[in-house]
Amino acid sequence: MIKNKASIGVDIGGTSVKIGLVGAEGKVLARDSFPTHEGGRHQSREDFLRLVSAAVDRLKKIASQKKRVIVGVGIGAPGPVDVERGFVYFFPNIPGWKNTPLKSILEKRLKLPARVDNDASALAWGEFVFGAGRGVKNIVVLTLGTGVGGGIILDGKLFHGHAFSAAEIGHLVIHENGPECACGNRGCLETFVGNGYFVKEAEKRLKSGQTSVLSRAGGKLTPHAIAKAAHAGDPFSIRLWEDTAEHLATALAGLANILNPERIILGGGLAQNGIILFGPLRRALAKKAFPIAARSVKVVPAALKLDAGVVGAAALLRG
Amino acid sequence: MIKNKASIGVDIGGTSVKIGLVGAEGKVLARDSFPTHEGGRHQSREDFLRLVSAAVDRLKKIASQKKRVIVGVGIGAPGPVDVERGFVYFFPNIPGWKNTPLKSILEKRLKLPARVDNDASALAWGEFVFGAGRGVKNIVVLTLGTGVGGGIILDGKLFHGHAFSAAEIGHLVIHENGPECACGNRGCLETFVGNGYFVKEAEKRLKSGQTSVLSRAGGKLTPHAIAKAAHAGDPFSIRLWEDTAEHLATALAGLANILNPERIILGGGLAQNGIILFGPLRRALAKKAFPIAARSVKVVPAALKLDAGVVGAAALLRG
Repeated sequence: MIKNKASIGVDIGGTSVKIGLVGAEGKVLARDSFPTHEGGRHQSREDFLRLVSAAVDRLKKIASQKKRVIVGVGIGAPGPVDVERGFVYFFPNIPGWKNTPLKSILEKRLKLPARVDNDASALAWGEFVFGAGRGVKNIVVLTLGTGVGGGIILDGKLFHGHAFSAAEIGHLVIHENGPECACGNRGCLETFVGNGYFVKEAEKRLKSGQTSVLSRAGGKLTPHAIAKAAHAGDPFSIRLWEDTAEHLATALAGLANILNPERIILGGGLAQNGIILFGPLRRALAKKAFPIAARSVKVVPAALKLDAGVVGAAALLRG
Repeated sequence: MIKNKASIGVDIGGTSVKIGLVGAEGKVLARDSFPTHEGGRHQSREDFLRLVSAAVDRLKKIASQKKRVIVGVGIGAPGPVDVERGFVYFFPNIPGWKNTPLKSILEKRLKLPARVDNDASALAWGEFVFGAGRGVKNIVVLTLGTGVGGGIILDGKLFHGHAFSAAEIGHLVIHENGPECACGNRGCLETFVGNGYFVKEAEKRLKSGQTSVLSRAGGKLTPHAIAKAAHAGDPFSIRLWEDTAEHLATALAGLANILNPERIILGGGLAQNGIILFGPLRRALAKKAFPIAARSVKVVPAALKLDAGVVGAAALLRG
């Protein structure tokens, strides 16, 4: 029965809008996309709606060739959303979206049921439905990228809070006198494990005279390069990952003590480096969290990789 | 209809066990109690059950005189509980309770439905049903005492987490290099705003040569004395409360960013000092939390005072 169903996921990103036809089994059956910017400016809201409609029409045809019934369209939106009404408050990095009733606009235009949520929640939901959180009811998902995003699933449902602004996990403070954060506060998790901060910390240590294969290697200092060096045994890089794991463990211990989840899922670039992050992270968490909370939680990498945004958005049609 | 109903609340504390007949309107209609210790030792589990049964029998008679129907007995337990089975894992400060199926034992003995939860959750539930959280569905409750306890209500239900160990709010880290905590971690909220730490900080500052009416007053340094001095305009004491508010605001900002509650309720001794805590606390929270989260939350003192434990336990029979 379920095998002939599919939904469409739309992931609105900073550089491109990705649209995918996603089977009820979680596989991306067809893809489309268009740039968020074009000719030096952002697509207008009207352009966006036109381009999404055209993409959906193409995917509808492909679905019909594949004998799939499309049950609806899910949107992962880069900003705060009233999830119940599918109403976009604004997008911090894309102008022209203030107070948009996106769900009802799309439903009229596409003649399909639509669901709108913010992108971090959609990613978390994708892991719950198709990824590393399958079969688990209480999950915290963190995405470690330029910023640190998050989604929380409690009792098998996405948790949004009173005004739909819950799960800003990057802005859990772990050091009240820590570095200034873009949000105006100090010492947010993001200021320790965001990509930029991670690289800046590496640069700072290298400038202070610490030695590493990285200083001899030349080339650009990236999380990936530092991970490669750590895997190759570079003590400087291993130490940097351990310290990053320690900061992250402080936040995860807080989350474990407050929410007592069964699983914590880490996605994003920084989390794709396997044991050099997860090893010290799990050890530090076991020390920092309450014993019951620490014993009952597994910390695992996200299962959905490049397609996570589109698959998560498509998964919004489930549940 | 509801007016002729009542339930019995049992609050197992470190020094005494309090039992109350609580009307469906939240009023304590009759009280009983016995000491947790007697003759230099803790009551055995069997003694406890006998004494509770006797107290419940007395309260049943009073209820019948007052034409009240008792709908059940609620227990606030000082330790981790499997809430679904009403099963006590252990009490950290009272020996002899390991793995006790308290709910089923009490139901057989008292011939009344029983509910068991940990005391911090029961307090939070009491505020939701009868106190400062009435009519509000997403609430975080903190109790500022020797330790810092907490309870979380999400979507109108007590939230317990995967292994019933959620809401350990005193152990949210706010300073990863902060003071050592009894839990083994560093910089937990409790190490900044627990009663003992608060008084210790005052002593440290006085010893370092800071001047205050408190140093001339003699007598014991207590949160209450420091609050009195602050209300009387003592700059030293005002500053100490402001700094404590700042620490607390860091934790509340984290909770607001993660859970986006509609209300945060503060109970316990430290929270009973009105504007000298709540003034700077609200200002600091507005600066530290995300704007949407900060705007949507009210921070208020607990409404239930001395009877909070018994009323909260009795409220467990509701919902």
